[in-house]
Parts: sequence; structure tokens; C-alpha cells
Amino acid sequence: MASTAKPSPFAPASIPEMPEIDGVRFNSCEAGIRYKGRRDLMIAVLDPGSVAAGVTTRSKTCSAPVLKCRESLRHGRARALVVNSGNANAFTGRKGREAVDMTCDYAARAVGCSRDEIYVASTGVIGEPLDAAKFSGLLDGLAKGAAASGGSDAARAIMTTDTYPKVIVRKVMLGGAEVTLAGFCKGAGMIAPDMATMLCFLFTDAPIAQPVLQRLVSYHADRTFNCMTVDGDTSTSDTVLLFATGAAAKRGAAGVSDAADPALAAFEAALHDAMRELAIMVAKDGEGLSKFVTFEVLGAESDKAARRIAMSCANSPILKTAIAGEDPNWGRVVMAVGKSGEAADRDRMAIWFGPHLVAREGERAESYVERTVADYMKGAEIVIRVDVGVGSGRAKVWTCDLTHDYVSINADYRS
Amino acid sequence: MASTAKPSPFAPASIPEMPEIDGVRFNSCEAGIRYKGRRDLMIAVLDPGSVAAGVTTRSKTCSAPVLKCRESLRHGRARALVVNSGNANAFTGRKGREAVDMTCDYAARAVGCSRDEIYVASTGVIGEPLDAAKFSGLLDGLAKGAAASGGSDAARAIMTTDTYPKVIVRKVMLGGAEVTLAGFCKGAGMIAPDMATMLCFLFTDAPIAQPVLQRLVSYHADRTFNCMTVDGDTSTSDTVLLFATGAAAKRGAAGVSDAADPALAAFEAALHDAMRELAIMVAKDGEGLSKFVTFEVLGAESDKAARRIAMSCANSPILKTAIAGEDPNWGRVVMAVGKSGEAADRDRMAIWFGPHLVAREGERAESYVERTVADYMKGAEIVIRVDVGVGSGRAKVWTCDLTHDYVSINADYRS
Repeated sequence: MASTAKPSPFAPASIPEMPEIDGVRFNSCEAGIRYKGRRDLMIAVLDPGSVAAGVTTRSKTCSAPVLKCRESLRHGRARALVVNSGNANAFTGRKGREAVDMTCDYAARAVGCSRDEIYVASTGVIGEPLDAAKFSGLLDGLAKGAAASGGSDAARAIMTTDTYPKVIVRKVMLGGAEVTLAGFCKGAGMIAPDMATMLCFLFTDAPIAQPVLQRLVSYHADRTFNCMTVDGDTSTSDTVLLFATGAAAKRGAAGVSDAADPALAAFEAALHDAMRELAIMVAKDGEGLSKFVTFEVLGAESDKAARRIAMSCANSPILKTAIAGEDPNWGRVVMAVGKSGEAADRDRMAIWFGPHLVAREGERAESYVERTVADYMKGAEIVIRVDVGVGSGRAKVWTCDLTHDYVSINADYRS
Repeated sequence: MASTAKPSPFAPASIPEMPEIDGVRFNSCEAGIRYKGRRDLMIAVLDPGSVAAGVTTRSKTCSAPVLKCRESLRHGRARALVVNSGNANAFTGRKGREAVDMTCDYAARAVGCSRDEIYVASTGVIGEPLDAAKFSGLLDGLAKGAAASGGSDAARAIMTTDTYPKVIVRKVMLGGAEVTLAGFCKGAGMIAPDMATMLCFLFTDAPIAQPVLQRLVSYHADRTFNCMTVDGDTSTSDTVLLFATGAAAKRGAAGVSDAADPALAAFEAALHDAMRELAIMVAKDGEGLSKFVTFEVLGAESDKAARRIAMSCANSPILKTAIAGEDPNWGRVVMAVGKSGEAADRDRMAIWFGPHLVAREGERAESYVERTVADYMKGAEIVIRVDVGVGSGRAKVWTCDLTHDYVSINADYRS
């Protein structure tokens, strides 16, 4: 099922290989959870002393694995990450918690660590019990055979409706040595449950203290992953984790234990960039999409208000459908701004489709030529900019259009 | 364009005729605003002493006619209502206000009243200037020729993408005499701008004081029209107005000036019922719909929380698409509950599709048989009930599914 969808028009020509990251070993296998003939279970084994930071879904009905991650993130010690695809282990009640407990027990035994140093994530159908007993014979071998070179296969093992693996690699200087930041994510279609939870796992050998790492992840996830939407739906399982082994210290990288340390600058920039790129890759693999769309809002009361307005546009079915139809329907932009609930001055609003001003001071711009803007709408990447005319708040949100293929994929998904 | 869509599968076999309402005269004509060969301009002329109450869109980018209605609703005196279809006169800046002023001037002169006793509404494309000069030669004749029997034609004149006119008629006892409550609305597709604003106009000869009327309209609109959604989009022009001529007083109906007057009971029940029926008619004429869907939420922290949860379900593209695909995908219900932001106890939640319990205590019900529920999903009217397990708040929301036809209608609308 994961492989039946046609590739996104934005699939990259080549996928970067996951590099070796000092202190991290990967392995993956076919556990046969739901898919046949493909890897659906992965482990990342981390050297002793590693730490984790992360953010999880705001859903009030989050999955059992999310609850477990939140628990372990309280202390942040980390020795392994176990992820399966094909079954999200969400809305599975007591059985779901038991499956997480079993998985953590197997993994802890295999790695030789405590249960609370294990992080888990599951993605796939929800409401179906996950048979974690299957993992008992597998995790031990996976841990033993884990190798620094196994990252690229692991990135494929977590895919569901993704039409391509999403891998990012950055190398930067930190405290006098080069460190690696690399990882992968899956998202695919809608950012919603079933086959399309957003999971992101990043790994680094940088020696950064856990509280600093957590601060970085929270801050930049809010400005990257939280600025991306496919259909406005929220998964029960969304998880972003960043693991740091600290192994670069052996090569002379000075440790960072203060978020204000100027030595962090390059790493922080690389982290932001990596998370933004991954978020854009997710939007560009949106289910059934034909266009990648950026909404830029300026002139709002605050940055937060600007993001709410941009999200209101990015989640409007009727506006996204117009974009799929290559229709420069700026009236629907006005509607979406209006329904956001945030302040906007109708008589000072201005709207651009790409470089073309279509409306200003609350009415159609005199320079507007429908055919010119209609031609612009034929492009694959659309930027819609709105000045709402009340302040200096700004935001940018990435999304895709809403197409017939989206309906087909989601109407026919289970049956 | 308004007539090209295929009729809703829920179109009624026969449309009730608008009855005569003491003190109200209607007229309508072809003004040629956008459509050819159909009525697109109507007037309702009200006897001196009439009052109006109403509610309008919460959009922050509301149209010029909405601003005018809000202004006149402050005093509530009413002598005429003028409505056009084909152009919403929204996001038309200064020109939009001028068009409203001109329309009110013509109407006031034609009826012989003050400008502030005129109410206006426009529905159709937004962002295109409305040429109100066209109305100058028309409104005078329309007002002169207005007749008590003209209501049914007026109901048709306000249609846009509606596939059938939506008319409601109720007769009830009030203060010792029978009074009439009747009116019509349009909504059609998405409840969003362009061709699909929700407008509702009700008329009665009941002698009810304006403040009481306003209280009734606000209270019941919140429990009827505000519990209905097609695609979660909010029009710049949504307007609900109730006009009362008081003419039934001549036939012995005692006036009502206190909202707590027990004589109001039957009228209030009829008003609620009329507004609910009209809201359901709008949802049942949702653009491209194949199924009418009711979400019932119980066990929420409050009625308000329940409505937010029900709306979150009713506006979820991925859940609405699953319903179009006749897929009993209760996992998507869990997701939509979770993303609402309202409290829900994952481990005490229960979900029913029609009479079938599919999940309880946070996991799939043992009695659940997929084929039985899949058969239920083949029906035209789907009821999904969720107990979120934390309190006693309840709500019911009406909506429709999200289909290929919705995408076709909205992607191809302007071009």
C-alpha cells in the first residue's frame, strides 16, 4: 500500500545517504507487521552517555508510544530508539501500553540498558492492536548487528505513504571540531494518523547538554514543523526527537551546557535549516499534491497572529482546491484571512500571487491582469503573500494543494 | 453557472410555496448582474412599524452589506430588504460602500422611508465591483409592484450554487391568534464566499418587540446555523435576518415585549425548528455531497467543548473523505477528537457509527464487525456518535462528506 501511490512531482532526483555518526549504530528488518517484502522495524543504538530531546503531538488522544517518549524525555537519558511502521499502536487502550512495555523490555535487554532509556515510535493504522511479541526474537539480533552504516535503510523502514525517504545531512563546527547532524523523517500525506504520522529523528555526535538540546528542539520545531500543514489534521503520534551522543568530544569538541554559548551558533543554524528542509520535504510529499504552496503573512498584530492567519489559509479546503485548479481566486484568500479570527484591516489589505499584486487597499489592484496571474498559477510552486495592514507580525507556512488524488487516496485507503 | 451542478441527492420532492405574510410584500426581477435568464434581485417591502433582528458573519473581512445590516440592527426599525445574487460586493473597498449607499438611497426613495430602515445583502463572486447604478431604474418598479404572493420567486432570486430553493413555513398560536413564520435561505456549497454565502431571511406577522426578537434570533442561530458546516470556511457575507411586521395584532394577537413571556413558547419552538430545518437543508445541499452526516458528541466538559469537538470532526478533510469512501474509519474520528484541543479521556472514549458500537474504553469494541459497519456506511445519512468520557456536555453538528465533485466544483469554478 505504501508503494502504490505515484511519486510526488517534487521527489528529489537523488536521496542523500545517511552518514556515519559517532556513537550511533542502526539496524532494520522485515518484521511483517503489515507490509510484505519491505523493512518495517528499525533500531538506533546509542553509546552510553547519550541524551535525547524532543517534542510530541498536542493531540488529546495521543498514542501509547508518545506517552512513553514524554516520560523518558523528562530525564533525557537515551540508549536506543525503536520504530515500527504499519501499525501506529494508537487508540489501542491497555493493550497499547502493554505493547510499548514489551517493546521496551526487549530493547533494554538487547541493548543492555534500563527501560527508561528506550524511546519508541509507531506509525501506521490506528485502533488495531500491535503484536509486540513479534519483536522478541528480532530486537536482540537487530541490536547485535547494528552498524554505523545502517542509517539509510532505517530511513526507509519508517516510511508509510511517503513516496520517497526524507534524509538530511549537515556538518558544522562546534567548539573547535566538526560535528555531524543527520537524520530522517516521514510524513507523507496528510499530517494525520493512519498511514501518515509525522515522525522525525535526528542524530548528532555534538556534546550538547540535554537541557540545551531540549531548548533548541522546542524553539526550532515551533518555527519549522509547526509551520507546515497538509490538511490541518493532527496525528495522534507526531514525534520529533534529537539524540546527541557527545562522541565528538573525543575529537576535541568542547561541550556546550549553556544555551547562550556563542559556540552553538553554527549548530543551531544547521539544526533550524535541517528541520525546515525536512518540514518542506513533508509538505512536498503531501498526499496527492500537484503544487507546493507557501503562504506569507505580514502586517499582522503579532507573529503568532500572522501564523494563525497563514494556517487559516493553508488549511482552507476551498482555497487549496482553487489552487489545484490553477485559479487565481484571491477572494478565497480574503475569506481565509477573515475566518482566522485575527485582526485584519479589510480596507488596507494587499494580496500578491507570486510577484503579482492582485489586490490593494481592500479592492482589486488596477494593475491586475487575470491572464498574467492565471499563467503564474500554472507553476508547481506557488507563493501567496498577504499584508493584513494592522501591525508588523510576520509568518510563513508551507502546504500543498487539495486535489482529486487526495480524495482518491483517502477515500479508498482502508477498503 | 448556478444551474450546471447536478441536484443534491437530498433535494426534496416538492418545495413549499411561500405563504402570504401580513405586512410583507415581495417582488423580484432579472437585473442581469451575472446570470442570464433568471431573477437575481429581490425586494421585501415591510409595513410601517416593522422591526428586524439578526446575526451576521464573524469574519474579520466582512462585506459592505454586512456592515450596513449591523448598523441598522442597532435600532432594528425596518421597511425593506434588498438582496442580489451574482455579486457579493465583498472586498470591493470604497466602491463597495458606495454601492450599498446607492442601493439604500434608491430603495428608501422607492419605498418612502429613511435609508437606515433598509437592509441589504449580496451574494456571489467577491472582489468584483457591484454596479449598483443598475438598480436605480429597477427598485422603484419592484417596490410599486410588490405583492404578498411574491415570496416564492424571491426565494429563487437569491440562489447561487444552490441546487434547490430552501423554503420553510410554520403557523403557530401567539397571544390568542395564529401567526405565520416563513422564509427562505440559500447556502449551497461550501459555506464560504464566492457563490456560496449563507443568507437566511425569515418573516413573521407576530407582534414581538425588537429586543425580544433579537434575543430569540441570537440564541437559536447559535444552536442551529452555527452547528452546521460544509467545509469549515466562513463567508464574508453570512447574514440571518428575522423581520416582524406585528400585523397579527390587528387579528387580536397580544404583543410580546418580554422574552420570558410564556405566550412566546410555541413561536420560539417554531423558530428553532425553522432555523434547524433550514440549516439542515443547507448542509444537504453541500457542494458535491453524497452523504449527509451528523456528529453527536457527548461526555464533554461542557456543551461548548462538545460543539468544538463535533466541529473538529465535521471539518476534518481526511475524515470527511473517508465517509465519502464509505470507509468506517473510526481511527480518523479519534484523530479529529484529539486535535480539537478539548479534554477527552482516551481510555474511556466510545464511538458509534449509527447503531454500531465500534470502540469503547479506548480500544476496538469486541462486538465490532467491520462488514456490518461498512454496510451501514453505504447509507445516505450517517450518524457518528462519540462519548469522550470526561463530563456531561453534548452537541450535535450537521455536515456532509468531501467528494471528488467538491474538488471539481471548486477547482473549476472561476476559470
